Amino acid sequence: MKKKITIAIDAMGGDNSPDKIIYGVNLFLRKNITNNDFLLNLFGDEKKIKELLDKYNISTNLIKITHTSSVVSDEETPLTAVKNSKNTSMWNCIKAQIEGDADISLSAGNTGVLLVISRMILKMMNDVSKPALAGFWPNQKGMSVVLDLGANIECNDENLVDFAELGSALYKSLFSNEKPIVSLLNIGSEEIKGTELLKKTFKKLKTLSNDNNFIFKGYIEGNRLMDGDTNVIVTDGFTGNIALKTAEGTAKFITDNLKKSLKQNFFTRISLIFSYFAFKKFKEKLDPRKYNGAIFLGLNGPVVKSHGGTDAVGFYHSIDLCYKIIKGNLMHQIKNNLNHLNSEQQ
Amino acid sequence: MKKKITIAIDAMGGDNSPDKIIYGVNLFLRKNITNNDFLLNLFGDEKKIKELLDKYNISTNLIKITHTSSVVSDEETPLTAVKNSKNTSMWNCIKAQIEGDADISLSAGNTGVLLVISRMILKMMNDVSKPALAGFWPNQKGMSVVLDLGANIECNDENLVDFAELGSALYKSLFSNEKPIVSLLNIGSEEIKGTELLKKTFKKLKTLSNDNNFIFKGYIEGNRLMDGDTNVIVTDGFTGNIALKTAEGTAKFITDNLKKSLKQNFFTRISLIFSYFAFKKFKEKLDPRKYNGAIFLGLNGPVVKSHGGTDAVGFYHSIDLCYKIIKGNLMHQIKNNLNHLNSEQQ
Repeated sequence: MKKKITIAIDAMGGDNSPDKIIYGVNLFLRKNITNNDFLLNLFGDEKKIKELLDKYNISTNLIKITHTSSVVSDEETPLTAVKNSKNTSMWNCIKAQIEGDADISLSAGNTGVLLVISRMILKMMNDVSKPALAGFWPNQKGMSVVLDLGANIECNDENLVDFAELGSALYKSLFSNEKPIVSLLNIGSEEIKGTELLKKTFKKLKTLSNDNNFIFKGYIEGNRLMDGDTNVIVTDGFTGNIALKTAEGTAKFITDNLKKSLKQNFFTRISLIFSYFAFKKFKEKLDPRKYNGAIFLGLNGPVVKSHGGTDAVGFYHSIDLCYKIIKGNLMHQIKNNLNHLNSEQQ
Repeated sequence: MKKKITIAIDAMGGDNSPDKIIYGVNLFLRKNITNNDFLLNLFGDEKKIKELLDKYNISTNLIKITHTSSVVSDEETPLTAVKNSKNTSMWNCIKAQIEGDADISLSAGNTGVLLVISRMILKMMNDVSKPALAGFWPNQKGMSVVLDLGANIECNDENLVDFAELGSALYKSLFSNEKPIVSLLNIGSEEIKGTELLKKTFKKLKTLSNDNNFIFKGYIEGNRLMDGDTNVIVTDGFTGNIALKTAEGTAKFITDNLKKSLKQNFFTRISLIFSYFAFKKFKEKLDPRKYNGAIFLGLNGPVVKSHGGTDAVGFYHSIDLCYKIIKGNLMHQIKNNLNHLNSEQQ
């Protein structure tokens, strides 16, 4: 019998937990009713979790509960977390991987603490210079992977090259077995543009592009991120975080203004009747919950961070992401990419 | 008699020039038909300019034409530009300021060349460490000033403090005489977040905030740029350029998807009849042409860069911006702010 995909879930992290977590679990189970190849390992307050499983009438044959007595608070800092976190749902959810109780861990809790704990428990892979937080970005043709989104605010060229390999492995495991197209985020598309660090990284990626892991397409500017011509976008954590949040802010600003315009008078309200389904489709396509889940890459096991403020639908998408990552054999893809990198550098 | 506001305009720079430039001039003259306090000094091919003035039936009593024999091409680089540019419309348009023929210069031509030429001809102000390119960003309450947008890809704390003073002066000259609220772009809002450079700048701006030029509000994240709670956003040119272009790309992605949704079938097309005016208003509010014009600050004279790809309406807005900048006495505001800075540092 093939081993089941086991996903460790921190049931207590993020807003409205464990309620939204358990309802997200419910959605995942309903969508995967015909699959029998996974097990969800929930970490948290057993009594509360059981009550919610009852409330939502969830069958427990694909669920395991591990009781934990405390929760990482939003106020905890990475510095104090290690001392204070050993009995938390988050800590035990990560630890499950080294105890053979999980293939991947998922939490919607405090990001900074999650990164520190994950790195401490799972340890960095031998060939990785720095682990990175990778996210998904919608574009005209589908989705691209963007990394780093904020784990490392200062990076060198070696880090950025690693990000290209890690991001390519993630893209391959999820979307396609073809070589992903990699671009480097910069303020111009000509080879002479940008900082010395970017120019150095450009050269290295160009050389590696002859290898078998990805095709390096050169620099990409912020206004082309959503064109869909690139699969993996590489940047340092400071720039990646600025770009991600600016895109979020811009999207909110535009949709807020659109809503206001469409509710302003009788005629525009009538127009909503005729365009209801079009707007629904439009909203669905851009729904940030579909892109919920950033992946911490470069450790000896994958960790997914769900947005703390998302709802049950968003959390469902991050469970689904965990499932697909393990199905796509991410860790194998990463090791394969890093092997290539090593033989190239020798 | 009060001296007229004189605006030097490069009539040849950007796409579809001089046609769009002259039509932009036409729009400006029509909007300011009752004002008699300005003169537009056009630089370029005299024959072509005259033909277009005739074509659009433009009265020439507020216009002066200075013939120039060549144009800065899009392919010119900042390195070769100085040698090749002396007879161009751009060069002479900037030079007009030191010859007393203009209070401000405006061009839609090659950005890199414009920055180099401007700096060479007008020279940096004594108290400024680096000049910056400042732009306008729409928000829920109006507009904010963002700088630097790409003139300096690497900055130190002294540069960023100068940008705060320059940006505040620009905001005051255009919008209000009250103290502008200044924020520093970062990846978190807590004081401990970000690079060492940002932490150092944070401390300096906090001290200066007790002065009389601006109120320092602390860090701002990318997703809050459009909330309208801050008037001046300070960042280095690399980060500013990434943020600006990512916002542009996101806005385009969303509006493209919206258009597609609304044209998909008979019902959604009907809805457009009812929502026509609402969409028009929505489009007008977000029209990038209204924000056209970035200002090169920190030289002994202001230079405005219009987007090369904008149309006559966009160019009209950048002429209007020049007019308002001089009316608002920008250079006086800048000197005032820098004086404060100097006395603070002594």
